[in-house]
This record gives sequence, C-alpha cells and structure tokens, in this order.
Amino acid sequence: MRILGIDPGIGTMGYGVVDSDGGRVKAVDYGVVKTDKDDSLPLRLLDVEKAMYALFDKFKPDEMAVEELFFTKNITTGIAVSEARGVILLCGRKCLGDKIFEYTPNQIKQALTGTGSADKRQMQLMTQMILNLPKRPSPDDAADALAVALTHAQTGRLSEQFKVGGLNLGKR
Amino acid sequence: MRILGIDPGIGTMGYGVVDSDGGRVKAVDYGVVKTDKDDSLPLRLLDVEKAMYALFDKFKPDEMAVEELFFTKNITTGIAVSEARGVILLCGRKCLGDKIFEYTPNQIKQALTGTGSADKRQMQLMTQMILNLPKRPSPDDAADALAVALTHAQTGRLSEQFKVGGLNLGKR
Repeated sequence: MRILGIDPGIGTMGYGVVDSDGGRVKAVDYGVVKTDKDDSLPLRLLDVEKAMYALFDKFKPDEMAVEELFFTKNITTGIAVSEARGVILLCGRKCLGDKIFEYTPNQIKQALTGTGSADKRQMQLMTQMILNLPKRPSPDDAADALAVALTHAQTGRLSEQFKVGGLNLGKR
Repeated sequence: MRILGIDPGIGTMGYGVVDSDGGRVKAVDYGVVKTDKDDSLPLRLLDVEKAMYALFDKFKPDEMAVEELFFTKNITTGIAVSEARGVILLCGRKCLGDKIFEYTPNQIKQALTGTGSADKRQMQLMTQMILNLPKRPSPDDAADALAVALTHAQTGRLSEQFKVGGLNLGKR
C-alpha cells in the first residue's frame, strides 16, 4: 500500500511518499512544493491544487495522511495554512474518496517515538532510522510529511515494538 | 455588473447576489447553503465546492466579494471555516480569475454604515434600506453575504454620500 503524507502549508507544503507491505515500510520520495509569496491567495491556492494533482498523478497513492493544525504561534499564518488545507483535503476526497486520515502533531510524535515530547531532531532521526535513509530527511516540511505518512503506516505496530524494549528516542 | 457575495462557513455558507449599474444596486437573490455535520470534513468541503459551482452556474457573476475571517470566538470553528474559505477562493479563482475581492467585517460595517461599531441589526436594516427589500434579510449568514456584495458595489460611492449628509445609522 502506498501512502502520501502531507504537511499542509500555503508558502511551503511538504510531501512524503512511503510504501508499506504491512511489515516493512520504505520511502519512495519526499520533498516540498512552494508557492510564490507575491501571488494573490486565490492564485496560491490554485498552485496548491495543481501540486496535489501532480502528486496523485505521479505517485498514485492508495491513502493520504495529513497533519492536523494547531495554532499556537501565528494566527494569521494559521488561517492561510487552513485555507491551503481545505484545498488539500478537497483534492484528496476527489482522488481517494474516504481514504484520507488526519493526525495531530502529538499523535505523530507518539506513534514514532512513544512520547508526545520528542523534538524535531529526534523525530527526524527516528524517521531516518525506520526508513533506513542515508541522511536525516530535510527540509523540515518534507520530514514532517514523511513522519505523518509513516505514522499512518506504523500506527499500532511500532507502539507494540516499543513495549518489548525497542528503541525509544523520546525516553532516552 | 453582477456581484456574488459570500459569507464563508463549513456548516452554513451565506450567499448574496446583487446587480450594480454603477448607480443603483438591486438584490437578485440571497440564501444559505448547508452541509451535513455528520459528514467528514473532506466530504463537506466537496459539498462547499459543488455549491460554489452551482452558484456560479446559476447566477453567472462577474465578480466575487468574500468576507475575511477574524478569530475571536472559537479557534476550532475558525480552522474549519478557513478550510471552507480555501475551497471558496479556489472555485472563485477558477471561475472569475482575479475578480475576487476580500473585505474585513470592519470594512463592511464602515462601507455600509460609516462606522465600524454597527451591530448586526443595524447592518441588516441598512442592507434592507439600500436594496429596498420588503423585509430585513435573513438568516444572518445570507444577510452578511448580501452586505459584503453590497460593500463591493458601493465602496467609495456610499462613503461620499455620507459626507454630504446621507443617512448614517452608525452615528445616530
């Protein structure tokens, strides 16, 4: 099964694609899509839509996992990110029906490291380790998108692994 | 020129259509579109998109005016409304190119009553008066949508009218 992970954004949107056969998970691709900050918001939303269809077309995912927003920093940024997220979910619905899943930042941290308090570097190291990547995934938005794809692939299985003494970066 | 005014929402979206010939403005239609709260968010966003295309198809507006959000009450509601707003702006961009305009609640109040402190009833009475409607427009979301359409039609002209002693409900 192929999973497309999305870290929503209006200026920079992260994507991460993984294949999961139920046991092993491997990375297919990851990266970011940028829109021009000098363009109007409706035009940038159109670019987000185009990018989404390009991703569906190129990778033909079976399911999509999207990071949920939570606003703590900048409410104006949060509004624009939500607007982009609306477009992302709309495209997902059209291409994948109800095969769309949402995870909060906390659920993602919990699923990958067993704790909600892992920092960005710990998350990236864990993502690198699970996917056996040659280096830490970057930039941050792409790493976040891989993490949410991985969360969807691994939820349940990894937490079991932790219980029997697996690596738990969050509790070091 | 025909203007489609939109008051964005995920549960209830208001719309108001007005024709403006540069001097007179008349109401064509107004109302609300609802989505099912038991449906998933992506499905509701799809319904918002369908409703937008139905409005464009039925009324064939030349321009669109959309109310900007501002979050003071409920941040979770605000996120969902922003997501719907992203879909609304995307549809607008596809159907009307760059003929999309945004107005803050304050700009709308200012344009219609000459003050940012008008309450909902004053706004509705002013909208009723300008459009010569038989009764106050309702429900609230439809009235708000008419008000933003009217703001787009009237901006400049009305504020001039106020200066020469026109009716100003806000300053009574």
